[in-house]
Amino acid sequence: MDERSLAVIYRTYLDCLNLRDWASLGRFVDDDVCHNGRQIGLSGYRAMLERDVRQIPDLRFELELLVTEPPMIASRLRFVCTPAATFLGLDTRGKQIAFSENVFYAFRGGKIAQVWSVIDKAAIEAQL
Amino acid sequence: MDERSLAVIYRTYLDCLNLRDWASLGRFVDDDVCHNGRQIGLSGYRAMLERDVRQIPDLRFELELLVTEPPMIASRLRFVCTPAATFLGLDTRGKQIAFSENVFYAFRGGKIAQVWSVIDKAAIEAQL
Repeated sequence: MDERSLAVIYRTYLDCLNLRDWASLGRFVDDDVCHNGRQIGLSGYRAMLERDVRQIPDLRFELELLVTEPPMIASRLRFVCTPAATFLGLDTRGKQIAFSENVFYAFRGGKIAQVWSVIDKAAIEAQL
Repeated sequence: MDERSLAVIYRTYLDCLNLRDWASLGRFVDDDVCHNGRQIGLSGYRAMLERDVRQIPDLRFELELLVTEPPMIASRLRFVCTPAATFLGLDTRGKQIAFSENVFYAFRGGKIAQVWSVIDKAAIEAQL
C-alpha cells in the first residue's frame, strides 16, 4: 500500500469516529488489534471508544499532523472538548479543555493492527 | 532530502544526546527551533536538555518506532531511567521508571525546526 492510500484510509477512519459509526469500525481496525501493548481486539477497541464518547460527548478527532511511511502512520490529534465529569482520572469540572494525542499506528492488510498512544495529560492539568 | 538521509540524521542526533555532546547540538537543531509551539531557539533547547539530564542523570534516548516522511519525522522514544528527585512535577522517590515519549519533528535545511512532544505522564504516575 502506498503513502497516499494509507493516508486516505486513516482520514476515513477519523471520519468514522467523528460520525460514531461504530458498526463500520471493523473496516479500519483489525480483529486482533493491540493498544499500548495490550491485545484488546476489535470489541475492546470499540468499547474504549464508546467509553471515551460517554465521558466526552462532544469529542471530535481533528488531525493536526500526519506522517505516513507504510505500513506505519503517526498522527497528532487535537481535541477541544468538554468532558462530562472526569477524564484520565482528572475532575475537569465541566470545563472545555484542549489537548493533543501523539499516536502511532501499524497497519496490516489495510487495517489498524497496533496502536501506541500518548495523551498530553500534563496539558490538561495545566488548564484545571 | 530522502527518507533514509533524514532517518540517519535523526539517529545521529539521538547519539549526540546520549553522548551529552551539547557543543554539537547546533548541527541538528535550528537556531530558531520551536518546541510545543514556543520558540525557544537553540540555546533554550540546549538548556531544556541540560535540565532534563540534571533531573535524570542516567537519561538515555532509545528509539522504539520511527516514521519518516520528509520533511517530517515521528518517533516513539523509550526511557528506562532514575530521576534524582522529581520529574514533571512528580516525586519519583529515587525509583527507576519506564515511560515513552511520542514526538514529531519538522526539519528545515536538515535541522530540527519544530518539535511537538507528548510524554506519557500517566504511565509514570502508575509506577509510583
